Amino acid sequence: MSYKNFPMVSRVVFGRGCFNQLEDILAPKRINSKAPFIFFVDDVFKGNAWLTSRIPLSYDDKLVYVSTKEEPKTSQIDELVEDIILSYKDRPSGIIGIGGGSVLDIAKAVAIMLNNDGESKDYQGWDLVQNEAVYHVGIPTISGTGAEVSRTTILTGPERKLGINSDFTPFDQVILDPELTKDVPKDQWFYTGMDCYVHCIESLNGTYLNAFSQSYGEKALELCKEIFLEGDTSDEESQDKLMMASWHGGMSIAYSQVGVAHAMSYGLSYLLGIKHGIGNCIVFDHLEDYYPEGVAVFKQMKKKHNISLPQGICANLSDKEFDIMINVALSLEPLWENAIGKNWKKTITKETLKALYLKM
Amino acid sequence: MSYKNFPMVSRVVFGRGCFNQLEDILAPKRINSKAPFIFFVDDVFKGNAWLTSRIPLSYDDKLVYVSTKEEPKTSQIDELVEDIILSYKDRPSGIIGIGGGSVLDIAKAVAIMLNNDGESKDYQGWDLVQNEAVYHVGIPTISGTGAEVSRTTILTGPERKLGINSDFTPFDQVILDPELTKDVPKDQWFYTGMDCYVHCIESLNGTYLNAFSQSYGEKALELCKEIFLEGDTSDEESQDKLMMASWHGGMSIAYSQVGVAHAMSYGLSYLLGIKHGIGNCIVFDHLEDYYPEGVAVFKQMKKKHNISLPQGICANLSDKEFDIMINVALSLEPLWENAIGKNWKKTITKETLKALYLKM
Repeated sequence: MSYKNFPMVSRVVFGRGCFNQLEDILAPKRINSKAPFIFFVDDVFKGNAWLTSRIPLSYDDKLVYVSTKEEPKTSQIDELVEDIILSYKDRPSGIIGIGGGSVLDIAKAVAIMLNNDGESKDYQGWDLVQNEAVYHVGIPTISGTGAEVSRTTILTGPERKLGINSDFTPFDQVILDPELTKDVPKDQWFYTGMDCYVHCIESLNGTYLNAFSQSYGEKALELCKEIFLEGDTSDEESQDKLMMASWHGGMSIAYSQVGVAHAMSYGLSYLLGIKHGIGNCIVFDHLEDYYPEGVAVFKQMKKKHNISLPQGICANLSDKEFDIMINVALSLEPLWENAIGKNWKKTITKETLKALYLKM
Repeated sequence: MSYKNFPMVSRVVFGRGCFNQLEDILAPKRINSKAPFIFFVDDVFKGNAWLTSRIPLSYDDKLVYVSTKEEPKTSQIDELVEDIILSYKDRPSGIIGIGGGSVLDIAKAVAIMLNNDGESKDYQGWDLVQNEAVYHVGIPTISGTGAEVSRTTILTGPERKLGINSDFTPFDQVILDPELTKDVPKDQWFYTGMDCYVHCIESLNGTYLNAFSQSYGEKALELCKEIFLEGDTSDEESQDKLMMASWHGGMSIAYSQVGVAHAMSYGLSYLLGIKHGIGNCIVFDHLEDYYPEGVAVFKQMKKKHNISLPQGICANLSDKEFDIMINVALSLEPLWENAIGKNWKKTITKETLKALYLKM
């Protein structure tokens, strides 16, 4: 048996206001005045001088606002990369993502594709990337996805929703400033926080579990419970804790794997464009057969925060649409193997999934 | 205010038996056949083929057994580095430490000094290292010190016991194989495990605490309690957990600081050559005024495992000796500031420390 040799984020700074250190952190990484830093920023911050005035632009640096109405697509990555290549003679000094999971994944994918030929869809999968990425920095502005520590960048391609999983994917630098999450709307705060919660449940109840991911998963789960079951939802301590929960939850799945909720939620995203956070919640709400305790606690959290999830989203789907969605979900074999075990194909059939999707 | 930008270990592999992956991990790092890998191995493994037969030696690679009767000295590092430079034309491909905190610190210090001029004592302190270290790998064979994740390497120099703290200190690769700890003698298991426990208490009760180090420290503390208060002491699960506790405890102090026990224990080591693990225990046993809860739980653990600590070790010291020991302890200003606060000098005097040392 061979264990994963996990590549970690190279550097991390944590603290309220540490976003102010961005300029000092980037300065030594500038290759020359013609090699720009490209900042991908969630367009929710357009016009928000509190944040944007602190983004250090000099020389030919560029700020690109990114809409996160839809999740990142391989075609979008290819266009962003082409834009950069056509606009500058020099390869960028660095790619900086400032936003949620989508923006962080865009930054990672662009940094990889700047140094690797072809289209990003060709790299969806495991360990297909040949060359080191351009220096890339992740700055989360919402907590939960774990994108800040993962070795993947999840993209929707023409054929599937699947990550570019590689040793070159993790950020060279992460800036964890919980203050940046202070204006996240409540529903998004809940959905994205639940992404972390679901990571913990899937990791801790998976067959891939080991003492490494267990210790991270348990801590993240504990923090999620403090935040979503016991705590106040909006204070500074809660923002600090949720940022760490996301980090630890990300480390936990990085060294194990996710499970049923993620597999099925990928199907929903692929077919219906449902975003990952809410998609996970919609699916997880119906997984009591797989994660009885986890789902019971999830329902308590949902109630405490008056969250109501969409219902009947699969009611009017055609057989062909069900097939597409189910095939995407079933193609994520490591997720099912982690959740159910090596013989998962005996119990997880197209019918099983259709029955579950019909409940949603 | 500026927050630390912490350099992490680049890669980590975890799992029982993952030591077998050492050859595959090192192979791509070999610069050429004349640039050797140097393995520093705790001499407790001399003649232990179960471990040594799995150390992959080829070309001019060299295995150097290291005695850990005494803690690493700056003069020892300088000799080891000179030996390597005189024996090989090429700089080594890598330095691999296989052992406890002392051996890991030797590996880190040698890797640094191979690429930095002068004597290692000149680099004791914070951020004095100029050049990147040689590729270096840490493989702990006893758990607790946190040396596998820290950005320091603690050395006893002519003037003080102090680490080489730098961004180049952390390992490029860590191999966490809990099976390697299976034959640790019980007393050493306890003393070194308590190093981790004390890290948690000092970090969690320090003024430098933040949500980052808190989350790591809480998890490590929880694991320590499971292992030393509740659990069986020798089973595989306990070995796995203690290796993770050491990791998390190390991360916790890396992003905060240690405190009173470490400061005073450094004094004991410097003057009396008392090793770090047992030194911490001897000191911590008398720190109920500073860490009341932590010391109470420590005494329970000590009792549960029938550990008896040396008594009266300072009874016959001269005034001059007390001065030396107290000056070493007081010179560690960040530790005292973390433990007591900015105004620590008002309460921590030579007399305070002498009274404490006299109890030990």
